[in-house]
Amino acid sequence: MATPVYFAPTALPALAEALARPATGRVAVLTDTTTARVCLPLVKPHLPPDTVVITIPAGEAHKTLDSCQHVWAELAKAGVGRDGVLVCLGGGVVTDLGGFVAATYQRGIRCALVPTTLLGMVDAAIGGKNGVDFLQIKNYLGTFREPSEGIFIDSRFLDTLDPTELVSGYAEVVKHSLIGGDEAEFAALVETGIIGADWPALIRHAVTVKQAIVSLDPLEGGTRRLLNFGHTVGHALESHLLASGQPVPHGLAVAAGMMTETWISRERRLLSEDNFDHVVFFLSATFPKITFAPTDVDAIAARTLQDKKNAQGTIRCVLLTGIGAAEIDHPIRVSEVAAALRWYQTVVR
Amino acid sequence: MATPVYFAPTALPALAEALARPATGRVAVLTDTTTARVCLPLVKPHLPPDTVVITIPAGEAHKTLDSCQHVWAELAKAGVGRDGVLVCLGGGVVTDLGGFVAATYQRGIRCALVPTTLLGMVDAAIGGKNGVDFLQIKNYLGTFREPSEGIFIDSRFLDTLDPTELVSGYAEVVKHSLIGGDEAEFAALVETGIIGADWPALIRHAVTVKQAIVSLDPLEGGTRRLLNFGHTVGHALESHLLASGQPVPHGLAVAAGMMTETWISRERRLLSEDNFDHVVFFLSATFPKITFAPTDVDAIAARTLQDKKNAQGTIRCVLLTGIGAAEIDHPIRVSEVAAALRWYQTVVR
Repeated sequence: MATPVYFAPTALPALAEALARPATGRVAVLTDTTTARVCLPLVKPHLPPDTVVITIPAGEAHKTLDSCQHVWAELAKAGVGRDGVLVCLGGGVVTDLGGFVAATYQRGIRCALVPTTLLGMVDAAIGGKNGVDFLQIKNYLGTFREPSEGIFIDSRFLDTLDPTELVSGYAEVVKHSLIGGDEAEFAALVETGIIGADWPALIRHAVTVKQAIVSLDPLEGGTRRLLNFGHTVGHALESHLLASGQPVPHGLAVAAGMMTETWISRERRLLSEDNFDHVVFFLSATFPKITFAPTDVDAIAARTLQDKKNAQGTIRCVLLTGIGAAEIDHPIRVSEVAAALRWYQTVVR
Repeated sequence: MATPVYFAPTALPALAEALARPATGRVAVLTDTTTARVCLPLVKPHLPPDTVVITIPAGEAHKTLDSCQHVWAELAKAGVGRDGVLVCLGGGVVTDLGGFVAATYQRGIRCALVPTTLLGMVDAAIGGKNGVDFLQIKNYLGTFREPSEGIFIDSRFLDTLDPTELVSGYAEVVKHSLIGGDEAEFAALVETGIIGADWPALIRHAVTVKQAIVSLDPLEGGTRRLLNFGHTVGHALESHLLASGQPVPHGLAVAAGMMTETWISRERRLLSEDNFDHVVFFLSATFPKITFAPTDVDAIAARTLQDKKNAQGTIRCVLLTGIGAAEIDHPIRVSEVAAALRWYQTVVR
């Protein structure tokens, strides 16, 4: 059974109900410094009065074991036991890290996710993956574990986002339309563009696509790898820029990853010239271009060798065969990735 | 279905077979410095030639997140991917820590446990619990996850143990006889004593008892808590002495925990005077007494408040109602624990 997802206006009341269940111990809410300021006031009336608030600094740079140790220690200090609940309020960093902390604290306590970014709502909080970065490799430590209490989505939080965050989350919405089996979905996105987006409807649709794919393959043995479209090159780019002290939002790295992986799909004659033009035009018109030095291309390409989806040392990549259609497990070479990144640098925005 | 357990003489050949399965990636073996010297030579012929060996220092003091970080980094350095296997060769520290590392590295890789101590064979490696100590609290971080490849038990490793380790593991064998529902089992142990023990038979029996209890309640919602007999006070004692720089073997702390919890059972009139004498006589004659300062009693007793089995701030303890019979979830007070520890200090060995 899919984990329950609650949407506004019933999302926060449903959270309050879950936390009021009999035999519930101490409740803790994990959030970051920014979200504590802009979102926590909206949620507080729905939390028990003695809820402990635990904060970590905002940003991907803090998605680390060090932050986990801080949160585990705060939970211990607050006397949260196995009957406690961790409510994770924030973007993908908070829900990924908090899900991991809840999965491992005292061998697992109850957990609720309240994503506050578009990326969190349509992607990070959905599907049971949690984790933190390690050795500057994205999500290298983590588990598969659905939040026991469910996912609580209130699109009013989107009003608190700066435009870059909204664009970043939109990359995953576009990704779902490119792999979701329905050519019309991508056409609909192109039609309205990000400006005319009907967010509550788009979020519900993206959640449905992702949950459908995850339910076929929760532990990512096969089909679920479709969701990694754009992420082989995207993660390499994101990890490299994070390690160089120039972090970029996850979604923008994924948008660049989708462009390069679409280019590789065309080079391999899996994708027609027309479809290639159509996808690349929309992506390059919608997402800000990521800049990196030409001398960094080889180092970025080499990072794709560390991807978790690889097997027996081969880079495995999702490639497009049409609009709405993709195939998993295409073996690709580091040199192809490098060539794609060089092409990406020449694309005019 | 219970996780497969293989016993010698087929244990190590069965391990070799599991590691030779198609689509198996890089194999790594985790062990500690002592076990690497005394046990690894026996296992090596059954491992692929390019197996990576990762070692951590021996001892409970190293069952920490720092050790995990070392192992995760070594796995990354060796290029172990999601298709890799971690073979954990050692006592409870290695199998608990290794199981946790395997459960969380790249969101979970294949895992095989090869316990080399009696404690590991009859207890730590059985039942899917893994974890590390945190803030000097025992097993405060971890997950529930059975080793995918199984548990491989070769009692020849017992020849490598010093007598204290053998006695320590024997405490869990005795525990299983006190809670396992069969009065005759305890009588049989008393009959032969530790000197006359038939280890292969005792190990098989203890594994069977533990797997039967675990299969009824894998996530420790109820029945499984029976296995915590002796561990409420035992863990408090072990954590306290570890934090004071005077670590004691886990089994000896559990033996002391069983004695004090048997005393509380008698004080509450759950256990008859005769059965109390019978149990305490055997325990005190078999296990070396643990020494701690009378001034430490209150601090040790207070530590039982941190126990993971507690709910809503109440200490929940397993108490004996007979020989072979126990009940979970008895709420007890810190003052009772302190009184029991004071009684323990007066027992002559």
